[in-house]
Amino acid sequence: MTQADRWMLPDGIAEILPADAVQVETLRRRLLDLYHCWGYELVIPPMLEFTESLLIGMGRDVDLSTFKVTDQISGRTLGIRADITPQAARIDAHSFPRAGANRLCYAGHVLYTRPRTAMGSRAPFQVGAELFGVDSLNGDIEVISLMLESLQVAGVERIHLDLGHVAIYRSLAEAGGLDEAKRGALSALLQSKASADVRRWVAENVADPQAAAWLQVLPGLAGGLECLERAGTMLAGAPAALRGALTDLRQVADALRGRYPAVELFFDLSEVRGYDYETGLVFAAYTPGHGQALANGGRYNGIGAVFGRSRPATGFSSDLVVLNTLGNGPAPSTGAILAPDVRWLEDAAGLWRTVRELRARGEVVIAALCGDMDSDLHARCDRELVFDSGSWVVKSRD
Amino acid sequence: MTQADRWMLPDGIAEILPADAVQVETLRRRLLDLYHCWGYELVIPPMLEFTESLLIGMGRDVDLSTFKVTDQISGRTLGIRADITPQAARIDAHSFPRAGANRLCYAGHVLYTRPRTAMGSRAPFQVGAELFGVDSLNGDIEVISLMLESLQVAGVERIHLDLGHVAIYRSLAEAGGLDEAKRGALSALLQSKASADVRRWVAENVADPQAAAWLQVLPGLAGGLECLERAGTMLAGAPAALRGALTDLRQVADALRGRYPAVELFFDLSEVRGYDYETGLVFAAYTPGHGQALANGGRYNGIGAVFGRSRPATGFSSDLVVLNTLGNGPAPSTGAILAPDVRWLEDAAGLWRTVRELRARGEVVIAALCGDMDSDLHARCDRELVFDSGSWVVKSRD
Repeated sequence: MTQADRWMLPDGIAEILPADAVQVETLRRRLLDLYHCWGYELVIPPMLEFTESLLIGMGRDVDLSTFKVTDQISGRTLGIRADITPQAARIDAHSFPRAGANRLCYAGHVLYTRPRTAMGSRAPFQVGAELFGVDSLNGDIEVISLMLESLQVAGVERIHLDLGHVAIYRSLAEAGGLDEAKRGALSALLQSKASADVRRWVAENVADPQAAAWLQVLPGLAGGLECLERAGTMLAGAPAALRGALTDLRQVADALRGRYPAVELFFDLSEVRGYDYETGLVFAAYTPGHGQALANGGRYNGIGAVFGRSRPATGFSSDLVVLNTLGNGPAPSTGAILAPDVRWLEDAAGLWRTVRELRARGEVVIAALCGDMDSDLHARCDRELVFDSGSWVVKSRD
Repeated sequence: MTQADRWMLPDGIAEILPADAVQVETLRRRLLDLYHCWGYELVIPPMLEFTESLLIGMGRDVDLSTFKVTDQISGRTLGIRADITPQAARIDAHSFPRAGANRLCYAGHVLYTRPRTAMGSRAPFQVGAELFGVDSLNGDIEVISLMLESLQVAGVERIHLDLGHVAIYRSLAEAGGLDEAKRGALSALLQSKASADVRRWVAENVADPQAAAWLQVLPGLAGGLECLERAGTMLAGAPAALRGALTDLRQVADALRGRYPAVELFFDLSEVRGYDYETGLVFAAYTPGHGQALANGGRYNGIGAVFGRSRPATGFSSDLVVLNTLGNGPAPSTGAILAPDVRWLEDAAGLWRTVRELRARGEVVIAALCGDMDSDLHARCDRELVFDSGSWVVKSRD
């Protein structure tokens, strides 16, 4: 690396410069304040932990995404976190247990060894909330509501909410007698939305004609609320777990339509995202013109068992930087007061007192330390402190 | 690792649980607001960069402290940052250059491979500010002032400020004709405050009798303001750079005494911390009863040269978690409103409207989702929402 390109950042790694940073910081505060008002308590888990604590079966993606280093103290393997959710689960199970509901929220950086999408970030700023200890549908509704309000706080104007339920695919795969390898193969086809391939694969691999018929219609069961009606008809007689999932989806949809009538609901009954660790409702929020989900989550009951305490769990997370880019966040406040360089003045103490008072009131006061060099500073300051009739006063610089 | 201890964290790595996290978050906001009011603009540099960008000669400590991983995309070595200052220098030199003064601030986690002190953290939450482009003493005074105000904001009541100047040791080492290896050896002895060892080493290694005499008195030149007077006498005739440093220390002391009369000033002319990259004033703030510095910094002109732009620079940083522990920060606000589980109610829509209004006013409203299980929740809520004469009202639970 020559001196000339020493400033380069790795692919997928970005820095956030002042104009954006103040917006990101503002959004960060508003989201944490929102979660606080809902009773979600902030936790600040560490950037790195033993891999045994971080990689607790929340998908192979997380393992592949995690940078590993050797601990010089213990000799064991440490991971730089690629997801904060397992840390929240650990905290609920062990460090900060509560008898009933435990509401936790967080905001922090995670790192990926490789971006998960083309042009994606390897250093998302993950913000999210997790609800432990509540297995009722009202828990799912609370978490989805909080996710939608997060997008509203970020200024995302049009929101599409995708709802799915992993029990649908799981119960049909079971009815079809698929072993783990075959479930994985079919879920990959479903995930890629390749309906023709799904049909062919099911015809070849599922012996039971009823289960095969149900699996064949799955890719077509996507759309608005009417899709739940169609599913009720087309999957009549399906296992009880599947019918229960349809009822859950309907109830969640009813509650959300009452609360957020402007949010468009979309159902995808072949949704298999995270089917290997999610256990119930899964959800993701989109906005038109942006291909990736802005926020997503789901129910993942039992994850705490690896830490000795199995608990119901549901939650969501989002990349704050992406949210900030796509939302219409608040314009950063502008304007600052230029203060003269105290070094050459008679009344330095009086100036200092005035500057302190202005800053205590929240004004931005910047000392001119470089004289004429400070062209940027002069452009930033719309007012200045001048000595007038024995005291320091703020005057407009226009 | 058995299931039973999977929750363990590595040595020197801590998580921050709700009661502390809300205090850390509050302090974080107050500090960033303080820096904002002084014209310091927030930057959010990434957690990892190429090691060539992070390890730019700011001390061997930083290199040894930096976790290294291989970039799966470029095949090059990445470092997890152990210090944010080099990132700020890179941003000033390249990404966000200004003609005159460039004031940057940051707050973020860094990681160390090993703790730097016994029982020290390997994951400090570094918060700090850097002033680029200003070589005048007023720049140093501004940065030290901001550091002192940071401690005040954190509620640190008694502050001791240590001031030193690397030109003092550097010019005497030069006068003594010491090569780089010998400078390092002597600086290590000075750092360990081993006066007798210093005397012996100087007698054996410094041929010039005048330079040897000056170096011999150095360890004794520590104390209050009077120490500058003694130094003026005992080092009379010393190189001009040394005399200039003494004048600088005196001027900075005068300015700070006017601004912060309650802060105790302490001078240590044998201070050699960071002498291999610091270029001028160095400073550190302490509080009685805590052995380590709460915040420290110094002038490190020219660091940006490795990115193609040499600039004057001075700044300070601190560990926000330590600051929060030692200061008397604000007590977290308590109290919350318990809302009934909406699922079993007639007037769910009315309750939802009321809850939203309360949250919009900043109240914490928590839904009872677990019924009698929620003993923790009942203890947290000092008020509750009850349906009374056709509307939802907040009542005390006492």
